[in-house]
Amino acid sequence: MQPDDSLPTVADESAPTTRCRILATANTFFHEIGYQKTTVADIARALKMSPANVYRFFDSKKAINEAVLERLIGEVEALVAAIADRAGLTPTERLVTAIESLHGHSMDRYERYPRIHEMVEAAMGESWDVCRHHVARVTAVFERIIREGVRTGEFDTPDPALAAGCVHVGVIRYTHPLLVGQPVLPPVPPLQAMIDFLLRSLAPRRG
Amino acid sequence: MQPDDSLPTVADESAPTTRCRILATANTFFHEIGYQKTTVADIARALKMSPANVYRFFDSKKAINEAVLERLIGEVEALVAAIADRAGLTPTERLVTAIESLHGHSMDRYERYPRIHEMVEAAMGESWDVCRHHVARVTAVFERIIREGVRTGEFDTPDPALAAGCVHVGVIRYTHPLLVGQPVLPPVPPLQAMIDFLLRSLAPRRG
Repeated sequence: MQPDDSLPTVADESAPTTRCRILATANTFFHEIGYQKTTVADIARALKMSPANVYRFFDSKKAINEAVLERLIGEVEALVAAIADRAGLTPTERLVTAIESLHGHSMDRYERYPRIHEMVEAAMGESWDVCRHHVARVTAVFERIIREGVRTGEFDTPDPALAAGCVHVGVIRYTHPLLVGQPVLPPVPPLQAMIDFLLRSLAPRRG
Repeated sequence: MQPDDSLPTVADESAPTTRCRILATANTFFHEIGYQKTTVADIARALKMSPANVYRFFDSKKAINEAVLERLIGEVEALVAAIADRAGLTPTERLVTAIESLHGHSMDRYERYPRIHEMVEAAMGESWDVCRHHVARVTAVFERIIREGVRTGEFDTPDPALAAGCVHVGVIRYTHPLLVGQPVLPPVPPLQAMIDFLLRSLAPRRG
C-alpha cells in the first residue's frame, strides 16, 4: 500500500494543531482590530510564539488570510450543499432556500463582524483565487439544483451551468460581503422579488 | 415674472466658480492620492486659499466628496438617459445599450482611476443618500424603457418599476464600482449572457 501524501506523517503530528491555533488567533484579530492593523508579530505574541515560528506554517499574512477565509467560506459552502441535498424540497424550493441562506449568513456575519469587509477586500486584491473558487463551488451547487429542475420539468434552460452563474451573480447585491451591509430599500427590490424575477427566467415556456 | 431661485443672484456670481475650482481640485486629489489621505488643508493649499475659505463652500470633506460624486454620477445618468431617448432603437436594444454603457463607463473609470473605490466606499458609509439617489435615477430610466417595451408588446411584466429594479440589481456585478474591477471569468457569466438571462424574464409568455 502506498502512503497517502495528504495525511500528516508522524513527525508532523503537532502541525495541524499549531496551524489551527494560528488561524483561530488570526481570525480573532481580523475580526476585532481588522485585517490591515493585524501583524504577524501580533499573532505570534498572542500565541507566545516567535514570528519565525508562525512563518514556518504560513509564509505571509496573505497566506494566513487565505486560510482564514477558506475556513469561513467552507462553512457557507457546506450549508448550501446540504440544502441542495435536503429531502422533501422541490428544485425551486432548494434554489430559494440556498439563496436565502447565503443572504442570511452574509447579513449575520456583517452584523456581528463589520470588519470582515477588510479581509474580503484584501482577499479580492491579493488572493483572488480563493474568492473565485468559492464562487465556482457555490455556482456548482446551484447548477446541480437547476439540472434536477430541468429533469423534473420545473426549469427550462439550454445551459444549466450558465443559468447557475446568472442566478448567483443576480443575487450578489444580497450576498456579497462588500454590499450586503447596504440597506435594501426601493428601488432595490426585496430579495424575494429578485428571486421571483430570476425564477421567471428559468420557467418553462408554454406553447 | 418671478425670479428663478435656482439661478445664482448677482451677489453669488463668483460662488459657482470657486465651488467648481474646489471640486475640480478635490477630484484630482481623490484620484491621485485617494480619498482617505486627502485633507481639506491639501485642497486649500493647492488653491492658495485658507481652509476656512474652503469651509465657506463645503462644511466638511464629506460634503466635498458628495459634490464630487454627484458630478461623476451626473455624467453617467445623462449618458443612460440619452440612450433611453435615442431614436431608432427598440426597447430591448435601449435596455441592452444602457446596461453596456453603465458597464463600459464603470470599467473605464476603474481602469483609469483605481482609487475611485475609496471615494465610493466612503460614500457608501457616509453619504449613502447620494448612492441611493443615483440608483433611483438609473432605475427610473430602466423603468421608462421597460414601460415602453410593455406598450410595444416586447416585454411582459406586471410591475415595470420592480422589474427595472431587478434588472439594475441583476447587473451590479458588471457596473458597481466596488466589483467591476474583478475579472469576469467562469463561473461568472459574460455580461451579454447575464443580459440575455434577465431579458428572458421580461419576455412575454406564449399560450
